[in-house]
Amino acid sequence: MKTEMKDVVVKVSGKRVSPTMMVVKSGEYEIITDKIGGEAPSPVEYVLAALAGCINIVGTLVAKDLGISIEGLEVNVEGVINPSKYMTGVGERAGYKEIRTEVLVRSDADLETLRKWIKLVEERCPVGDNLANTTTVVTNVKKV
Amino acid sequence: MKTEMKDVVVKVSGKRVSPTMMVVKSGEYEIITDKIGGEAPSPVEYVLAALAGCINIVGTLVAKDLGISIEGLEVNVEGVINPSKYMTGVGERAGYKEIRTEVLVRSDADLETLRKWIKLVEERCPVGDNLANTTTVVTNVKKV
Repeated sequence: MKTEMKDVVVKVSGKRVSPTMMVVKSGEYEIITDKIGGEAPSPVEYVLAALAGCINIVGTLVAKDLGISIEGLEVNVEGVINPSKYMTGVGERAGYKEIRTEVLVRSDADLETLRKWIKLVEERCPVGDNLANTTTVVTNVKKV
Repeated sequence: MKTEMKDVVVKVSGKRVSPTMMVVKSGEYEIITDKIGGEAPSPVEYVLAALAGCINIVGTLVAKDLGISIEGLEVNVEGVINPSKYMTGVGERAGYKEIRTEVLVRSDADLETLRKWIKLVEERCPVGDNLANTTTVVTNVKKV
């Protein structure tokens, strides 16, 4: 489909501060990542948090389009992962095998409308799209 | 492939605090998300930061396996996205169309070994796996 909007390039830049911790600059903000159980949230936790936050933002946009109001929203996300592949190099896929979200909404809309709403939110949520579908990831290594 | 390791379920829970902002609890941490240009990093920025952080953690594990040492690591990540779909509901895919990473390494290893290293890192990085490949995302909406 054609669109009048231009592509946007989102950039972040991370520096290793320990074998497990990285400080990532994203515009004016710093996002600190560490291993699971470390001194900051882990990358795989940030992925689930991003999905929850995405449902909030896109949920607001879709609610406006449908003429309904979201008075409260809670999003519980869980992902099932097997640590073997990233820990040892052997095993099934490295990432989440399945991600499940529970979206609890306070709204003037009935449940049928909220089901329509969440379907549109899923279609329009960038994070959900990148998790559910394939995306080219190009990696370039340099020795400095 | 068989593995002795058990599946792990990672959970986060987000609460809407404004039409664009969400506070997400992840274990003992809080991750705050907002729209692009808002008062916290946006979900799509967290996704790229998660990929950078993942490369650090998995990079450490793989370096140990290869018997090389990582003395410094910087990861620049950029993603190309068109805002039309999530803003208006019309347009190409909602998420990143392509993600590019530049991995700058200080190491005792030569470039050829680092290329082998990054290939293994890509295979073992959970975040990269979930971005590059398809994952089932199940969404359940409830009116509360």
